Amino acid sequence: MADLTLFTFDWVPELPRGYVRDLRVRWALEEAGLPYRVVGVPFRDRDAGHLAHQPFGQVPWLTDGDDSIFESGAILLHLGTRSDALLPAEPRARGEAVQWVFAALNSVEMAALPWAFFKIMGDAGDTPGGKWLEDFMRIRLQRLEPVLAGREWLAGSFSVADLLMADVLRLVDRFDGLAAYPACRAYTARATARPAFAKAHADQIAHFAAGDRARFIGDRCAGAAGPN
Amino acid sequence: MADLTLFTFDWVPELPRGYVRDLRVRWALEEAGLPYRVVGVPFRDRDAGHLAHQPFGQVPWLTDGDDSIFESGAILLHLGTRSDALLPAEPRARGEAVQWVFAALNSVEMAALPWAFFKIMGDAGDTPGGKWLEDFMRIRLQRLEPVLAGREWLAGSFSVADLLMADVLRLVDRFDGLAAYPACRAYTARATARPAFAKAHADQIAHFAAGDRARFIGDRCAGAAGPN
Repeated sequence: MADLTLFTFDWVPELPRGYVRDLRVRWALEEAGLPYRVVGVPFRDRDAGHLAHQPFGQVPWLTDGDDSIFESGAILLHLGTRSDALLPAEPRARGEAVQWVFAALNSVEMAALPWAFFKIMGDAGDTPGGKWLEDFMRIRLQRLEPVLAGREWLAGSFSVADLLMADVLRLVDRFDGLAAYPACRAYTARATARPAFAKAHADQIAHFAAGDRARFIGDRCAGAAGPN
Repeated sequence: MADLTLFTFDWVPELPRGYVRDLRVRWALEEAGLPYRVVGVPFRDRDAGHLAHQPFGQVPWLTDGDDSIFESGAILLHLGTRSDALLPAEPRARGEAVQWVFAALNSVEMAALPWAFFKIMGDAGDTPGGKWLEDFMRIRLQRLEPVLAGREWLAGSFSVADLLMADVLRLVDRFDGLAAYPACRAYTARATARPAFAKAHADQIAHFAAGDRARFIGDRCAGAAGPN
């Protein structure tokens, strides 16, 4: 088996912890039972080496032997070719899951991510732009609600499509955006109750906490060296 | 060869014409030289039949024999399996193109679509939310600029990744968002100079113009019937 290495930041501020996208890859790897290691790259300085793997200076990226893959959606489709626990092998079921991978990212997250940032900044939808974004989010959730009321998982059995959709909805739920959508909320709870999610989430939190300790020690050492 | 049918709205208002996402599928089909037909579905009433094919009530969707596929990204990956003109056959090159498909949709369009709507609504970035969205767009374009300055196409030869990225950048360019990014602008011009784009674009414009005529006749007939 090729060596799988997941690259994420060595540290991030408190706010995004538990939501950095390496979580999606950790979750998938745990679901599939694939062995992997995690490497932290500097949050502060995104050098040419980082950009060679992730041209937008984001995380995560994954190396699989000699291949280096960026974009969480592409990484999950890649891992899906290695495990039926992530993508069904039967072509029609696989096609269905791939559609929902794109729907999670391009139809739902495209509304959810800006919406969440507006919530963080306290824009309560009282500007024309803020109102448009509220409507964009609402229209997507209204359409998703009957879909999720009628099925346990998006494409037959649990797949990376659910992992992505649940991770996107989790962000909406963080800012109480699922209150009017009980099926969306129940689905998110169902997905995040999976042991693989719990492991991935705890590992991400621990990874960034270790980054805090490394910084603290780094600051103390810099202080001890003194200004000379 | 299976029968390919592209479903889009029968009519849309002036503003989105030339930008409705069936354009991406038309463009890909023209690049690949695959025969297809186009069917219009009601813009006003998105009934259960529509939602069965496209759960968010959007367009396009594509049927390929008995398969029905939604999400433009998923449709293009599906068509890519049918033509080397859309996705390279060699696994590493194909993987590279798939990464850029996700980057176009999930890293760049996620900023570009809300940004464009804010421009339409005259939100000039003078609210905290609007300013965040301006920054989100700028950061993506700043990272993309050196990538596109250094290569003709994203993943070796022209692929669906370019088709998607160029379609996303075209929307940014519509609201003059590429003025500071000459490589992004040159790349968009290079992609949209392809005959397949010109054909797809003209066909979409003609399709919605035919929708205008059908409405005009429908209105006249309704008028002639009188209110009885």
